[in-house]
Amino acid sequence: MQTQVTTPKIRVINPNTSASMTDLIERCARGVVAAGTSVDAVNPSMGPASIESHYDEALAVPGLLEEIRRGDADGVQGYVIACFGDPGLDAARELARGPVIGIAEAAMHTASFLGRRFSVVTTLDRTIGRAEDLAAHYGMARFCGGYHACDIPVLELESDPAAQQRITDACAAALESDGSEVIVLGCAGMADLCEAISKQLGVPVIDGVAAATVLVEGLVRLGLRTSDRGEFAHPLPKSYSGALKSFTIEP
Amino acid sequence: MQTQVTTPKIRVINPNTSASMTDLIERCARGVVAAGTSVDAVNPSMGPASIESHYDEALAVPGLLEEIRRGDADGVQGYVIACFGDPGLDAARELARGPVIGIAEAAMHTASFLGRRFSVVTTLDRTIGRAEDLAAHYGMARFCGGYHACDIPVLELESDPAAQQRITDACAAALESDGSEVIVLGCAGMADLCEAISKQLGVPVIDGVAAATVLVEGLVRLGLRTSDRGEFAHPLPKSYSGALKSFTIEP
Amino acid sequence: MQTQVTTPKIRVINPNTSASMTDLIERCARGVVAAGTSVDAVNPSMGPASIESHYDEALAVPGLLEEIRRGDADGVQGYVIACFGDPGLDAARELARGPVIGIAEAAMHTASFLGRRFSVVTTLDRTIGRAEDLAAHYGMARFCGGYHACDIPVLELESDPAAQQRITDACAAALESDGSEVIVLGCAGMADLCEAISKQLGVPVIDGVAAATVLVEGLVRLGLRTSDRGEFAHPLPKSYSGALKSFTIEP
Amino acid sequence: MQTQVTTPKIRVINPNTSASMTDLIERCARGVVAAGTSVDAVNPSMGPASIESHYDEALAVPGLLEEIRRGDADGVQGYVIACFGDPGLDAARELARGPVIGIAEAAMHTASFLGRRFSVVTTLDRTIGRAEDLAAHYGMARFCGGYHACDIPVLELESDPAAQQRITDACAAALESDGSEVIVLGCAGMADLCEAISKQLGVPVIDGVAAATVLVEGLVRLGLRTSDRGEFAHPLPKSYSGALKSFTIEP
Amino acid sequence: MQTQVTTPKIRVINPNTSASMTDLIERCARGVVAAGTSVDAVNPSMGPASIESHYDEALAVPGLLEEIRRGDADGVQGYVIACFGDPGLDAARELARGPVIGIAEAAMHTASFLGRRFSVVTTLDRTIGRAEDLAAHYGMARFCGGYHACDIPVLELESDPAAQQRITDACAAALESDGSEVIVLGCAGMADLCEAISKQLGVPVIDGVAAATVLVEGLVRLGLRTSDRGEFAHPLPKSYSGALKSFTIEP
Amino acid sequence: MQTQVTTPKIRVINPNTSASMTDLIERCARGVVAAGTSVDAVNPSMGPASIESHYDEALAVPGLLEEIRRGDADGVQGYVIACFGDPGLDAARELARGPVIGIAEAAMHTASFLGRRFSVVTTLDRTIGRAEDLAAHYGMARFCGGYHACDIPVLELESDPAAQQRITDACAAALESDGSEVIVLGCAGMADLCEAISKQLGVPVIDGVAAATVLVEGLVRLGLRTSDRGEFAHPLPKSYSGALKSFTIEP
Repeated sequence: MQTQVTTPKIRVINPNTSASMTDLIERCARGVVAAGTSVDAVNPSMGPASIESHYDEALAVPGLLEEIRRGDADGVQGYVIACFGDPGLDAARELARGPVIGIAEAAMHTASFLGRRFSVVTTLDRTIGRAEDLAAHYGMARFCGGYHACDIPVLELESDPAAQQRITDACAAALESDGSEVIVLGCAGMADLCEAISKQLGVPVIDGVAAATVLVEGLVRLGLRTSDRGEFAHPLPKSYSGALKSFTIEP
Repeated sequence: MQTQVTTPKIRVINPNTSASMTDLIERCARGVVAAGTSVDAVNPSMGPASIESHYDEALAVPGLLEEIRRGDADGVQGYVIACFGDPGLDAARELARGPVIGIAEAAMHTASFLGRRFSVVTTLDRTIGRAEDLAAHYGMARFCGGYHACDIPVLELESDPAAQQRITDACAAALESDGSEVIVLGCAGMADLCEAISKQLGVPVIDGVAAATVLVEGLVRLGLRTSDRGEFAHPLPKSYSGALKSFTIEP
Repeated sequence: MQTQVTTPKIRVINPNTSASMTDLIERCARGVVAAGTSVDAVNPSMGPASIESHYDEALAVPGLLEEIRRGDADGVQGYVIACFGDPGLDAARELARGPVIGIAEAAMHTASFLGRRFSVVTTLDRTIGRAEDLAAHYGMARFCGGYHACDIPVLELESDPAAQQRITDACAAALESDGSEVIVLGCAGMADLCEAISKQLGVPVIDGVAAATVLVEGLVRLGLRTSDRGEFAHPLPKSYSGALKSFTIEP
Repeated sequence: MQTQVTTPKIRVINPNTSASMTDLIERCARGVVAAGTSVDAVNPSMGPASIESHYDEALAVPGLLEEIRRGDADGVQGYVIACFGDPGLDAARELARGPVIGIAEAAMHTASFLGRRFSVVTTLDRTIGRAEDLAAHYGMARFCGGYHACDIPVLELESDPAAQQRITDACAAALESDGSEVIVLGCAGMADLCEAISKQLGVPVIDGVAAATVLVEGLVRLGLRTSDRGEFAHPLPKSYSGALKSFTIEP
Repeated sequence: MQTQVTTPKIRVINPNTSASMTDLIERCARGVVAAGTSVDAVNPSMGPASIESHYDEALAVPGLLEEIRRGDADGVQGYVIACFGDPGLDAARELARGPVIGIAEAAMHTASFLGRRFSVVTTLDRTIGRAEDLAAHYGMARFCGGYHACDIPVLELESDPAAQQRITDACAAALESDGSEVIVLGCAGMADLCEAISKQLGVPVIDGVAAATVLVEGLVRLGLRTSDRGEFAHPLPKSYSGALKSFTIEP
Repeated sequence: MQTQVTTPKIRVINPNTSASMTDLIERCARGVVAAGTSVDAVNPSMGPASIESHYDEALAVPGLLEEIRRGDADGVQGYVIACFGDPGLDAARELARGPVIGIAEAAMHTASFLGRRFSVVTTLDRTIGRAEDLAAHYGMARFCGGYHACDIPVLELESDPAAQQRITDACAAALESDGSEVIVLGCAGMADLCEAISKQLGVPVIDGVAAATVLVEGLVRLGLRTSDRGEFAHPLPKSYSGALKSFTIEP
C-alpha cells in the first residue's frame, strides 16, 4: 500500500457536462503538477450542464461514478472531483482504486495552513448551505469566517466580461467583513482567477482544482489511498435495475 | 401556506427497488395515520435492490427524485424517504411541493423527546458512518449514545428466521453499553419489529417509517412545507444530458 | 408501550395564571388536531401572571407539576407545556404518564424540517438567553440563525393593537439579518398570528403551541412515551415540607 | 461595583430541608474562608428532604429563592447554592444583590485548573444527566472524563458506615476508566470526605461547597457581582397567585 | 494535598521584561488578597520587552520557567502568569510545586459567573487569535461575545494619556455590538483601569491579574494544586544543550 | 504570491538536539519528494535531547525559531516542524518567509482523506494531551478515534529492538478498540516504520514527516505561503534581553 510512486497518473473529473469548463480545469491542473506526473480532465456524458442546487448535485453523481469506473480501467491512480459541492465523494472513495479528493475539501484544508480564517467566495447564494455542510463535515468550520455569493451563474463565469471584477470585489469585501486572511474560490469555473486576485488583494487565494490536484499527487506519491477497512470498502455485489442497470456490482 | 389540511395525502418512498420491502413499509405507515389521512408506499423502477453503501445510496437518488415528481403530479401533499440513510433528502426538498422527512431524521428527533440518549441498531457495520453524519447534520449527535450493527444484510431481514432475536439481543446490549434509554431501529426493513422488541425490553423502540409518517402528517395538517426562500427553492431551469435527460428542469 | 392509540387525549398546560392566554392557546391547539383527538388547555392557580425572567420561570414549575398530576388523574395521554421557556420539562417528564413536549422544543424541531435556518422572534430581550440555552440543549443551535425581541411584554400581546405589525416587522428584519428561511414565534401568546405573518412574508411561520400539539398527538398515536429507564423514571418516594408539602411522593 | 470588600459576608444555602446536612455544609465552608470572612449555612423550610430527581430539583427552587430574599435583607454579600444540580442558579442571580455560585459550577471550574480531565463521582445514577447538562452549560464538558454513581441515596451518606469506602473505590475506578487526573465529588453531602480520599488516591479531590465558598469570597473581595445589564437584571414587577403569592415582585 | 493553608504565599510573574509593568501588576495583586496572604510580582531578565505576537509569546516562556524554578526555591505556593496569552501555562504546571493560573484563564472563568456573555477588549488586533484559542481551550468560547482591539501597543498603555478613554470607548462599543454584559480587559497592562471603566459603564469589568490572584489564593487555601498524575506530572529527567543548558532536568 | 515554483527547496526541522533522529527524518523526507525538489533536515544546537512534556516542547521553540531564521537566510521556501507536538508552529509561521507545516497537522489532515477515523499511536502516555489539543485546534477531533501510547521513550525507538513489534501491536489494538480505519504514527522517530506496519495490518499508516514534506512541497509549488495579513504577519520590531537577546527584531 505504500510503495512510493514516482510518476503519478491523476484524473480530474468535472461532474457537469460542460466541456469548456473541463478544458479550463485541465489547464489549471496541468499547471501545478510536478514533472513526471500526468494529469487530464474529463466530464461525464450524462447529467446536468452545471451544478447549482442539491438536485443538480445529486444527479451529477451517476456520471461521476461512471468516470471513476472508466478511470480505474485506464490505470488512473488518483482522482479529483472538480465541483465545489464535492458531489459523490464518499461513493467515489468506495469505488475508486486510488485516493479521491474534492475541491472544496482540498481548498479548505489548504487554507487552514495559511491563516486563522478564510472566506469562501462562490457563485449563487443558494449553494452556500452545501459549502457550510462540507466545512462542518471536514472539520473546517472553525477556519471559515464566512460564505459570500457574487450572484453569477456557473456558466456565465466564462462569458461575463465583468465577472472577474465582481469576484475580486466580493473577495475584498469578504476579507473586511470576516476579518479573514485567506480567500477560497468556491467554484471550479473560477480556477484561472487565483493569481490575479491574489496579486490585487495581497492575500493567498486558493483554487480548489489546483489545491486538490497537488494533494492527490502527494497521496499517490506517498503510496496512500482510501482505507479498505470498514466504511469505505468496495461496494458489495448488488443488482441494479432500469436506467442504472450498468451500475450493478458483480459478485 | 398555512391553511390547515384535514385529509392529508402522504406517500412513503422506498428508495430501493425491492417491492416486498415496499409492502412492509406501506403496512407500517398505514397503521399509524389518523382517520382521514391517506398513505401509500412506492419504489422506483431504477436503482439498487438494497442500500448498503454510499455507492448504493447515491445511485438510489435518481429513482427517488422521479418518484417525487410523479407524486407531485398525483397531488401528494407530503413525503417520507424510507431508507435510514435519508438519501436525496435535500434534493427532494427542493423538488417536492410538500414537506419531506427522512426516516433517520424522524426516528432521531422522536427519540430525543423520550429520553436523554438513544442507541441506533442497524444492519451492516459499514452503514454506521452515514448514520453518524446524519445525527451530526440534524443536531442529534448529543442524543445518540452509540451505533450498533447486527450484521444482517437488508434483504435477509425478512427471510432470516433468527433476525428478530439477533436484533433484540443487539438492542439489549446497546442499552447497557451506551447507558441509553431509547432504541432507534436503523433500517426501514425492521419497521414491523418495534412493538415486540419494546415489550421485551421495556423501553421505547422507534421505527423511522412510523415516526416519519406521523411527522409528515402533522406538517401537512399544520399547512407547513419546505421554505421556498433560499437554499431549498425549486431547482433552476437546467438542461440534462444522456441517460438523465428526463431530469431536465424546463424554464 | 406501543399499542397504537386512535383517540388521543391531549392537555396543553399554560404555566402562567392568565386565563385569557389559556383560552387563546386552547383555540389554537383545537384547530390542528385530527378528528378523534381531544385536546383542552388549563393553567395553574398558583404562580406568576406571566413568565418573563428566570425567576418567573422557576416559580411557574410547581403549578405546572400540579397540573400534570391532575391530568394523570384525568386520564390525559400527552401534555404540551405552553411557554417558550419550556419550564419544568424534565420534571414533568419524570412525573407524567404520557409524553410531554415543550413549545420551544416543538417549534425548533419543526422548523429544522423546513429550511436550513430559522429566526426566533420573541417578546422581551431578557428572555433570549433562555431560548439560546434551549436550542443548545435540544441540538437545534445549528439551525437557529438569531433571536430577536420585539419589546412587547407578554400580557400586552393581546391588548396592544400595534403588536401584530411590530411582530411582523421584526420577522421580516430577522429573515434578512439572519439569512434565514423560517420564522419561529417565541411566545405562546403569539399563537394566533402564524397564518397572517406567513401569508405576508411568504415563509413558514411556526407557532409552538400548534407544533407541539401535533407532535404529542403523534407520539400518543404511536404508543410512545418518556422512557421509564434511568434519568426520567418516576421520582423516588420523598417527603416534602411547608408550602410544598402536597408534592410529597408517597412510597 | 468594584470597591474592594475586606470582610465578606457569605451565605451557603442548602436547598433541601435536611438540617444535619446544612450543619455539615456550614462546617466545611467555615474551614476554608480567610480570616475576616463570615460564612453561615441555611436551608429552606419548604421543599424536598433531599434532591435526587428533576422533580425534587425544580421544587427546591421556591425555598431557595426565599432564602436569597432573606439573605439580601440580612446584608449577605455572596451566596453558594449547595446542591450539585445547582438548582435555581439563574433565578437566584436575577434576585440576589451579590454574586451566586453553584457547587457543581465551582467544582468543575476548579478542577479544570488542576488537570486535563476530571471524573465526577456522585450518588444515584439518575442524577448524572443533570450533571452532564451543567458541564455543557458551563463550558466544562471538555474537561469531564466521566460521571460515576456509587448508588448511595443522599440521606444515607451520613448514616451508612460503608459510604466512605464505596465512594473512594468509585473514585479509584473512575481515575482508571476515564484516564482522569482529578476527582469532583458530586454531592454536598460528601463535603467532608475530600481530604481522606485525596490522601488515599494521591490526586486532587474537589468538594464543591469548599470550592464555591472560596470562589464567592473572591468575587466579593474583588467587588464583583452579577451584571445588572440584560438577562440577569432584577425580575420585573409581577403579581403571583395562590401558594406562591409571597413571591410577587412589587413595582 | 489538602491540608488547608492559612497564609498563602503567591507570586505573580510578568513574562515580559518591563519592570514598570511588573510594578503595576504587583500593586493590583496586592490590593485584592486577604489579610495574611503575601503576594509579590517579578519578571524574567531574558526575553521580550513586551508580548504582542506568537513569536514574543513563545520566547517569553524560558524566562517564565526560570522564574517558576526560582519561586519554588523561594517557597512560593501558587503562581499567576500575568500576560493575557497565558504563555507557558502547561509547562509551568508541570514544573511548579503549587497551582498556576493564567490571567486570561482567570478573567474568562470569572466573567462566566457574572453574565451570559463577556467581551474581551485588548491591545493589538493581531493578538485576538491567541485569545480565541485560549477561550476554546478553557471551554469559555460559549461565553465570549467578541474580541476587540483598541490599537494601543502594550508599552504605550502607561504613557499614552488618551489610552484610558480609548479603552473605555472600545468597551462601550463592545457591549453594544456583542450584546454582552461583562467586560474582560485583555492585557495585564490594563490592570488599574477596571474600577473606573466599571463605574462609567455600569457593568462588571474584569482584570485578569486581580481575578487570577484571588483564584490562586483560593486554591492554595483549599490545599489544591496541579495533579501529579499523568499529563502534568513533573518533567522527566532530560539533558538540555547550548543556551538552554540550565533547563536540564537532573535525574 | 502565486508564481508557481518548479524546484522547491524544503527544510525539515527536528526541534530536538538528537542528530541521529535528524538523519532518520532526512532519509524519510528525501524518499517522498518529486524529482526537482530539494530537501534537507536540521536540528538546533540548543534545547532538549528529546521532547516528552510541555516543558520540553516549550523549550524546543527558541532553537526551532533560530533554524527558521537560518533557513530564510539560506533561501529555504518551505518548512516542516518534525515533532508530533508541532512546537512553535504559530511563531514559526509569523517568522518564516515560506509556508510551515507541523507533522501532527500533516498526518491528521492526510488521514482525514483516507477514512472516517484514525487512531494515533505514540510514545508516552503523557504526550497524549498535547495531541488531543492539536486535533481540536486543527478541526481534526471528529476524525480521531483514540490516542494510544506504547510506552517507549523517544530516544529508545531506535535502540530498542522490540520497538517495532510493540508499535505494530499497539496499532492493531487501536484499530479494534477505536473502530478506526487509518493509523497515524505520533512521533517523528517512527518515520521509517510506516511501510512495514501498513503491509502487516492492511490499512494506511501515516508518518507525519513524509506527509508534511509532501504538503509543504505542494504549497511551494502552488506559490502559497502564510498570509501576511493579520495574526501571522511578521513579528513587530522588539528588543529582547539576556540569553535571548539574539531574537531581537530590528525595526
